[in-house]
Amino acid sequence: MSGESKWRFKYIIYPQFQYTLVAINSFILFVVITVFGVQIYRSFAYINGLGVRANLPPDHNYFKFINIQTHNLMVNMTIASFISLVFSVLFTIYFSHRLVGPIVRLKAHFLEIFNNGIIRPINFRKTDYFTDLAEVVNNALEKMKK
Amino acid sequence: MSGESKWRFKYIIYPQFQYTLVAINSFILFVVITVFGVQIYRSFAYINGLGVRANLPPDHNYFKFINIQTHNLMVNMTIASFISLVFSVLFTIYFSHRLVGPIVRLKAHFLEIFNNGIIRPINFRKTDYFTDLAEVVNNALEKMKK
Repeated sequence: MSGESKWRFKYIIYPQFQYTLVAINSFILFVVITVFGVQIYRSFAYINGLGVRANLPPDHNYFKFINIQTHNLMVNMTIASFISLVFSVLFTIYFSHRLVGPIVRLKAHFLEIFNNGIIRPINFRKTDYFTDLAEVVNNALEKMKK
Repeated sequence: MSGESKWRFKYIIYPQFQYTLVAINSFILFVVITVFGVQIYRSFAYINGLGVRANLPPDHNYFKFINIQTHNLMVNMTIASFISLVFSVLFTIYFSHRLVGPIVRLKAHFLEIFNNGIIRPINFRKTDYFTDLAEVVNNALEKMKK
């Protein structure tokens, strides 16, 4: 088993949910990058407009300089976008793993009830999400047993 | 009831989970904005360095021009950060609302079993998340009834 699939094996425990969250966050990031892109564009359009209003000829060094800047900034923005995407995806997977843990355990619990007829209380960890759900489920199962 | 609390009433159905998701995404956004800020800084440091290497005096128009640009870009980046944050929070709340719907229904279902002893199959909508969980729970409950 490669290192990558081991990682996937450990952190992708509920693919449907986790990949959806990754998709949502990538979409948000896409919008954010677009907003930043538009604002940077507006910024340079303004600086460019200063040169136009000063009646500088189109081949003036002012515009050449702005072009160098724009190119340099675009390279750095592309790097920033890439770093942001990688961070967002990895962090979302890591955190969603914690988030869906209780759901996966809940599912395993009911699968056990179905397969072996063993009804035990669900143990969520104190730091888990959805602990109130565990309590409600345990109370209901307790009542059904009677 | 004000419009704001109506909105909250409708879209915040599982505060613990939804606010956690908002916090996670705001953290991701914070990192993304920092990465963009650093890259923009690097870009302008490079442009500034060109002037320094050309031995321009510190009060040269070149540096004044870069300062105007930096200020203008910072204003636009602040606006971009604000728009991004608002979008990220609203979209996360809207989407997490869809995500936790099945969990909220699952909880209500077991609360009903506990309170009234009525065991009915859980109906998730086809577009819901966690539909596999509903199936597993229904199978288990069906078996327990026998």
